[in-house]
Order: sequence, then C-alpha cells, then structure tokens
Amino acid sequence: MEMIHEAGQYVDTVKRVCEAVGSEVTFRGTVHRVRDMSDFSFVVMRVERGLIQCTFQGDEIGGIKRSDVKDAMVLEVTGTVREEPRAEHGVEVVLSALSILGKPYDQLPVPLGKKYMGLSLDVDLPLRPITLRHPRKQAIFRVQGAIADGFAQYMQSQGFTHIHTPKIVVAGAEGGANLFKLDYFGTPAYLAQSPQFHKQYLAGAFGRVYEIGSVYRAERHNTSRHLNEYMGLDFEMAYIDSMYDVMAMETGMLKSVMAYVKEHCAEELAMLNAEVPEIKEIPTIRFHEAKQIMEEKFGHKSKNRYDLNPDEEVLLCQWAKEEHDSDFVFVTHFPSAKRPFYAKDDPEDPKLALSFDLLFRGLEITTGGQRIHDYQEQMDKLEARKMNAELFESFTMLHKYGMPPHGGLGIGLERLTMQLLGLNNIREASMFPRDMNRLEP
Amino acid sequence: MEMIHEAGQYVDTVKRVCEAVGSEVTFRGTVHRVRDMSDFSFVVMRVERGLIQCTFQGDEIGGIKRSDVKDAMVLEVTGTVREEPRAEHGVEVVLSALSILGKPYDQLPVPLGKKYMGLSLDVDLPLRPITLRHPRKQAIFRVQGAIADGFAQYMQSQGFTHIHTPKIVVAGAEGGANLFKLDYFGTPAYLAQSPQFHKQYLAGAFGRVYEIGSVYRAERHNTSRHLNEYMGLDFEMAYIDSMYDVMAMETGMLKSVMAYVKEHCAEELAMLNAEVPEIKEIPTIRFHEAKQIMEEKFGHKSKNRYDLNPDEEVLLCQWAKEEHDSDFVFVTHFPSAKRPFYAKDDPEDPKLALSFDLLFRGLEITTGGQRIHDYQEQMDKLEARKMNAELFESFTMLHKYGMPPHGGLGIGLERLTMQLLGLNNIREASMFPRDMNRLEP
Repeated sequence: MEMIHEAGQYVDTVKRVCEAVGSEVTFRGTVHRVRDMSDFSFVVMRVERGLIQCTFQGDEIGGIKRSDVKDAMVLEVTGTVREEPRAEHGVEVVLSALSILGKPYDQLPVPLGKKYMGLSLDVDLPLRPITLRHPRKQAIFRVQGAIADGFAQYMQSQGFTHIHTPKIVVAGAEGGANLFKLDYFGTPAYLAQSPQFHKQYLAGAFGRVYEIGSVYRAERHNTSRHLNEYMGLDFEMAYIDSMYDVMAMETGMLKSVMAYVKEHCAEELAMLNAEVPEIKEIPTIRFHEAKQIMEEKFGHKSKNRYDLNPDEEVLLCQWAKEEHDSDFVFVTHFPSAKRPFYAKDDPEDPKLALSFDLLFRGLEITTGGQRIHDYQEQMDKLEARKMNAELFESFTMLHKYGMPPHGGLGIGLERLTMQLLGLNNIREASMFPRDMNRLEP
Repeated sequence: MEMIHEAGQYVDTVKRVCEAVGSEVTFRGTVHRVRDMSDFSFVVMRVERGLIQCTFQGDEIGGIKRSDVKDAMVLEVTGTVREEPRAEHGVEVVLSALSILGKPYDQLPVPLGKKYMGLSLDVDLPLRPITLRHPRKQAIFRVQGAIADGFAQYMQSQGFTHIHTPKIVVAGAEGGANLFKLDYFGTPAYLAQSPQFHKQYLAGAFGRVYEIGSVYRAERHNTSRHLNEYMGLDFEMAYIDSMYDVMAMETGMLKSVMAYVKEHCAEELAMLNAEVPEIKEIPTIRFHEAKQIMEEKFGHKSKNRYDLNPDEEVLLCQWAKEEHDSDFVFVTHFPSAKRPFYAKDDPEDPKLALSFDLLFRGLEITTGGQRIHDYQEQMDKLEARKMNAELFESFTMLHKYGMPPHGGLGIGLERLTMQLLGLNNIREASMFPRDMNRLEP
C-alpha cells in the first residue's frame, strides 16, 4: 500500500533548459538529428515541445559511444547549459551523461530531421503516426489545439455551458442525404451530420451552450476543402434579438481566439509564417448585394442564384480586404429555399432566411443564423416543404412547449486552421483525415 | 453594408438583477411557474442560469392581463428590484412592463415548475428536450460541463496539447468485439471504442496530449453503469518513469477539477446536495492485495481471478474510506491476461500488467497504465496472444521508429458525474443517453 500524491508543477523542458544557463540539467527527449563534426557531434533533441541542441564531445560518455547515437533514439541526457546564439533558443547543452530509454528498430521512412520533409500528401498521410513528429506538423496541430482551447475559454467567459450531444442519431438535421448509416443493435441509425437539433434543445434548457464535437458528412466530394469527418465548434444562444447577436458573439470569439493563439503559439506561428488577422469589426453584406458587388466590381456573372460558389467566396474576400481591410466577411440573407427548414425566414421578405455565412480568406468557415422558435411557424415551414412533421416530433416538442428566440452557428475547426495557417489542403489541417479513400491510420 | 462589432461584456442575469436592488432592470426569461395570490401573482422566471421571482400587481400591465401569463411563456420583463429574503437569491422584481417573445402551444407534459418532477427514467428520457429545462436537471449538466472545462484547463496547465482523433476506424483498439459497424462508402468501418492507438501516436509526436471525445461500445449491457455512447476524458504522456507518473497526474487533475467545480457550480452542488471529495493523496493497492483485503476484512470470497466485480469495487471503496478517509482508490498490477495487448507487463512479474483502475465511491471511473514502447516487446506480446501483427502495422509503426516510455488513461465523464453527484443511474448523467433500446431524442 502506498499513497499517490499529485505531480509537481509542470515546466516545459525548453523553458527549463533556457533558464539554466551555467548549470546542469537532466531531461528526456528523442534524437531529432545527429551531425558528426569529427571531434564532436551535434545531437539535436526533440523534447515534448521544441528542439534542444546538445554537443556530444569525445568518443564515449559513460559507456555509450558517440557513433551509437542515432536518429529516433530516446534518451535521458544530463549536461551543462551554455549560451550559443546559433542554436535553437540560443542555448546548447554540453552532455556529461546519457542513457537510452528507447530505440528505433528501423531507419526512419521520412527525413524527420530536415527543416522541410517535402512529402506529398500521399506519402505523408499513411505515415502520420511518424510524420506528425516533425516540428512543422506539430506546429499546425498545436495551433489547432489552441484554437479549440481559446474557443472554449471564450465561450465559458460568456456564460455558455459545455455540452456533449449524441453522434448516433435516427435522422439527419439537414435532411436524409449524406449520412453514414450504421447498425445499432439491429436498428438502422446514422452518424450526426450536425448537432443542430440537440443544440436547439439545449439552448431552450441552458440558454447558452457550446460544443466541440465530431461532425459526419457522407459527401462524395474529393476536394481540398471537404472532409467526411471533422470537428465542429458549435454554439447556440437563447433570448437573442436577431442573428446579429450571434454574429457579434462570433466576432468577439474570433478576436479572443486569435489573441489566445498568438499568446500560446508564438513560435509555431513564426515557424509556419502565419499571419494572425487583426479583427476589429467584420463587414457584412447581404447575399444579393454580394452578387451585385461581384458583378460590378469584378465583372463576375454568377451561375448560382442560391448559394456562393467557391470562386465567389474568394472574390468576396478580396473585396472585403480591399474595401475594409478585413480578412473576414459575413454574408447574410441567403435565399430561404436552400437554407435548412429550421432557419427563420425574414419577416420583411420570407424568400430570404435570417441566416449567414462567415468567409475567411476566401473560404466559408461558418454557417449560422436565427432559428424558428414559434411552433406554428415551424410546422408551417415543414408543411410548405412537404416534409413529414411526424418524423420531427422530438424536434418540434421544443417549439410546442415555449421556446425563446434563439440562434447559433457551427465552425469547421479544420477549415479555420487551414485558413489561419495558409495551408493548401484541408488534409494538412486534420491529423488523421477521413476522406472517400482514407480510413487509416 | 454594415460592420459587426463584438458583443458587450457578458453578465449573468441573476447577478445583474441581484446587483440592481433599488433600481430598474429589464431581462428575458421563461415563465417557470405562476402563483395567483388573488391581488397579485408571483411569476417566477427561469433565466439562462437560475430563477428570479417577479410580482405582477394589479390585473394588467401594458395590455397584458395577469391571467394571460402562463407557464412556459417567454417574456421580456422590466421592473424594480427589491430585497425579499424569502425569494430565490433574496430579491424580487416588481414588474412594470412586459412583452411576450414566445408562447407554448400546449400544456407542459411534466411539472417543470415543481421542485422535484418525480419522473421515472422511462418518462423523463423521451421528453429530455423539455425535462432538461428543470433546474435540477440543468444543475447536473452544468456540473458535467464544468468537469470537462476543469479537466481541459488542468491539462493545458500541464503542457498537454488538445487533440481530436478520428472516431471512424478500421478496427478496435480493444479487439474485435463490441464494435458498431458502419458502411463507409462501401467499405466496412467501425466506431472507435477508444482513442487508444491515436493517443499513443500523438504522445510520440506531442509528448503530452488530451482529448474529450466520444467513445462507442456496442456492449449488450443494460445496467445502471453502462452507456453505448459516452464521453471519454483521455490523456497520454511520454517520457514517464512509470505508471505512477500517470496516476500522480490524475490525482492532480482530479484535485484541480474538484476545485473548479466548487468554484463554478456552488449553487448547483448545493441544490443537488452533492459533496465534493477532499483529495489529498489517493491510496493505492495491488490487485492481489485488494482481493486479500476483501477476504480478510469483509469475508468476501472472490469469484473473479482476473478483474474486480462490481460488488468488489464497492467493498474496496469502503475500505479506502474507512482506512484512509479517501473517496478514491487506485488498484494496480492487474493480471496481464485480461488487460489489453498494448499494456506493459511488469518486468518483475510478467503475469501482471503495469496498469491500473481508479475507483470512486464504489465504481471504476478510469482505466490506465503504462504502454509498451519497445517494438520487439510489442511484437512478442502480439505473438504470444496469437494476434495477427499484420493487422496492426499502422500501430506498431509507432514502436518501430523509436518511442519514449509512455502511458495514459481514460475517464468516463458520465461515470465521474454520476459518482460526484450521487446519481443512481448513468442515464441521469447523460443528456441524451444511447442504450440498447434508446436512439432518441
């Protein structure tokens, strides 16, 4: 019998080493690369966050030969820290002791020690358990983690309750298509293509709710901007005046997230040459106005009367940048016909929905809006769309027993990451992407 | 065209009203209950977090009759705040204006306005979109949200990166059984029964990772402690000395989470009469020692040589409480045969695994341990178990190219919530539980 106490206060290894100039440190890490300089070797160690340069002088330290130290070995090392302006973080560690904690059984299949691995996605993705060890890949996902953390932190500060909604459901929020089907103890079930219904239920209960959860779309797309499984950052809020409350909340959230990422991932952003957008206010145009601007300003004749095509998302963002120095633009009042049945129509023009998209550097990253809260209005809309209201009895229960005006949105975490970091393919912003041809690793 | 600014600083309605004694406030909420006192009515409003008592004096205010105000109406109200020690929060609002924002179309199917609804689960669960509006239900899930938030906050403070791993996978980490099968564009796929493999990949890349994600178990259990879809709080950490590092991290995390919940959910805990455990250190016993104690102390003859039965979890917790005044107890060194193939065996006795469970108030809430990091050791264990190593090539890639000693754990969020709040059935701790007979709402 013994008693387990909590762990000591955590200090990041890089920080600990940097603060120990002139004294001895012991730390653990993995050999990132070795460079033999004849008299000595540089042994660059990859620690839990960052790289630390060590020098191995002489032929042997405590029984371990210099020539035995190989890439991908896991070591515990001890040495004296000294300033070295040419090394990472301006310090290096002169090794005095080392021991081997783990060893590779084969040569690395990719050049992890190089600044750029230069791999195509077809080579990279199947080897992700290994390629994610590269500092540039790590940087992408540290930023992504910080976006999620920053999102949660802001939501908490605004009184939102953290929720988890089921991903196994009986039907899809957006209609029947594009659903992954599964066998649930003999009953057909589906993977949720959005937490929409449950978010609305919970806005009715908790007022303000947020979720970070998986979203499934069985779309037969194979593009640089679609994934079949992605992470949704969702929130839903009750007692709103209009969808503009939701948009203002998103503006504040994005501002806060960007500040969070800057604070927590300065090195990663620098490594990736990423520029964090300065957000003051976000320009907003109506869908029809957007089509007009594209025609007048860019001579673009739209072929899509109901939605924005990808090239239009690019043009609108160009406009927002030129006219308003903004990396973001809201587009509102989409044609109701192509927005979901739970979207509230504009009382001033019921052909338009009180719903919006947010575009960021040429790509849609959010869909949101005000939802119908009145029971009769929801039943009428189901009927007008010739949808079977009986299938939505759980959902319309929400409206039947009194519901506040409410609205919300969903953000694709991978898309936000991709646009923030200037990545070319959304698979670069998903650790283990699931697409039409990929289920592993 | 207009510009969208961020929302103003959020202040919780209850707080705003409490701070406005003597002055006028306007706020929105839903009528929680009305009590007619002949000359006036008490109108208790449910706001986004909490209840506020209002008084409606006279027969009419601005065209709205007192008799028209009904349960479940959504209102914007204005009134003067005065002290009233008998009301919630010690204040009440004397109404001077109100307007209707939303209305119910039917009488509530459950007594939301009562202190206890007194519903059986069979009545409660299908009506969850409505029953979650009850303050006591809300309290449960505000605490659950705070547990998740507190977990994330602690993990961040200890240098863990927030990860999201795929839930659609080709095979299960724990073996082939108990998997939900799905059709992935014509290919068979499964829902992940644990983020195990991906967590290990990512510990190799990021050193320390945490996830809050869905877990799927197609177990044909119908008990008060099993769900078929639940939320896992997972972490994995590299460069450890032993599983005791993982246990120490969990001890620190739980201590921090309990403090977080106390700070953020004081009213909810009081409403639910929940006692937050005081954690200083957690007693730890070996599996065989545990069996011995149960026999010696409680005269309990065990029928299970490989695991702890539910009644034994209760007995061990009783022992921990009596002997060590602890609501938690770690059990270590389980027989290797019944622990997963990635668990590291004890070099001093390879029949035992370096893995542990954490019990809390009579229930297992965590399984964790040290994992195998050496390639040969992992290949040998696969072979000893007559498992086909070829099926695990993606996984063993991890070990092949050098892996630090590492370990981690998974916690069931619903179980932790259930035990913390003293709930009798895990369905009480899941907003929309998925069990063998339940796919809705």
